[in-house]
Amino acid sequence: MRTGKTGRRPGRSGSRERILEAARQRFADHGYDGASIRAIAADADVDPALIHHYFGPKQRLFVAAVELPIDGRDIAPLLSSGPREETGERFARFFLSIWEDPRPRASLSGMLRSAITDAGAAAMIRELLLVRILGPAVAALGVGDPELRVTLLGSQVIGLALLRYVLVVEPLASASLDTVVGAFAPTFQRYLVEPLGP
Amino acid sequence: MRTGKTGRRPGRSGSRERILEAARQRFADHGYDGASIRAIAADADVDPALIHHYFGPKQRLFVAAVELPIDGRDIAPLLSSGPREETGERFARFFLSIWEDPRPRASLSGMLRSAITDAGAAAMIRELLLVRILGPAVAALGVGDPELRVTLLGSQVIGLALLRYVLVVEPLASASLDTVVGAFAPTFQRYLVEPLGP
Repeated sequence: MRTGKTGRRPGRSGSRERILEAARQRFADHGYDGASIRAIAADADVDPALIHHYFGPKQRLFVAAVELPIDGRDIAPLLSSGPREETGERFARFFLSIWEDPRPRASLSGMLRSAITDAGAAAMIRELLLVRILGPAVAALGVGDPELRVTLLGSQVIGLALLRYVLVVEPLASASLDTVVGAFAPTFQRYLVEPLGP
Repeated sequence: MRTGKTGRRPGRSGSRERILEAARQRFADHGYDGASIRAIAADADVDPALIHHYFGPKQRLFVAAVELPIDGRDIAPLLSSGPREETGERFARFFLSIWEDPRPRASLSGMLRSAITDAGAAAMIRELLLVRILGPAVAALGVGDPELRVTLLGSQVIGLALLRYVLVVEPLASASLDTVVGAFAPTFQRYLVEPLGP
């Protein structure tokens, strides 16, 4: 896994990057509770104290390790640019482009498993996904009920990720990208910009 | 919890019912892996061997314990009766009526947590939710792509349950039933009976 081919942050590929890589793998494989600092330190070939020095407590390491390749500040302009009636499709393609990439998928799967079994991780996921990522993007659209919309969007995003990528339920797991976009874009479109009544 | 007020199966409220009640509670509190047969037996005040006698291996006990108050044979006529354009709303109200009831909610929450952290439980949930419950209901509607529709429906159903009932994310968790029905009924309507293209 540590091939150094990701090309991110060249020149900082020392112990800090090794710790993050080891943490991502541990959180993905064992969930939040099951990933011990000691094991991560061993995987990264560093002293556990160095992890604390760089990241502080485990929660901070977790947030750093599962950092998405893109954050809310990038989603907002993506959603706001282009035809309003295609907002849902843009969101669907953006969301799928992240999960189709094996590296974030592994982190995100671990994050999702942790969130569902660990209250502390759940709070962090709420913070990360709903407040930091989706919140600003939905707010930038200037529609009513932004907080409710964020949770509606989150419910479909998480359900889709769970069934397609984490639990690998067929035929959704093997459906083509276009099929998945076609199926979910109208849902995202409604949650993002259309009236929410029945 | 064992008040005997549920009124189900009067006259069979002996050790079998006590085992199921204890199992429901353990699975809800500790997930599939964390709920040991020994602990369930202790809670139910029976010998562990009796649990095996009644239910066989843990998997069978789990399926028996989380049994929904209603099954696919009941959902199918509910969805098929009444105006076609209100199918999604009927499904939304039915789904919510189950989760708003604290007893199935506890079982289902435990089931969902188990499904996400345990591969064996995940397979059982797929079988229970998608094949036995939602599968026959969607098939009875006679629309195209029933298998894909079941997974679309499942993704939104699971995401809604997770955010509103398991992770208790606001403002979705405190939203009124009518707000939730209004928000999700059109989604269910599309996944159940409308064309799936973009």
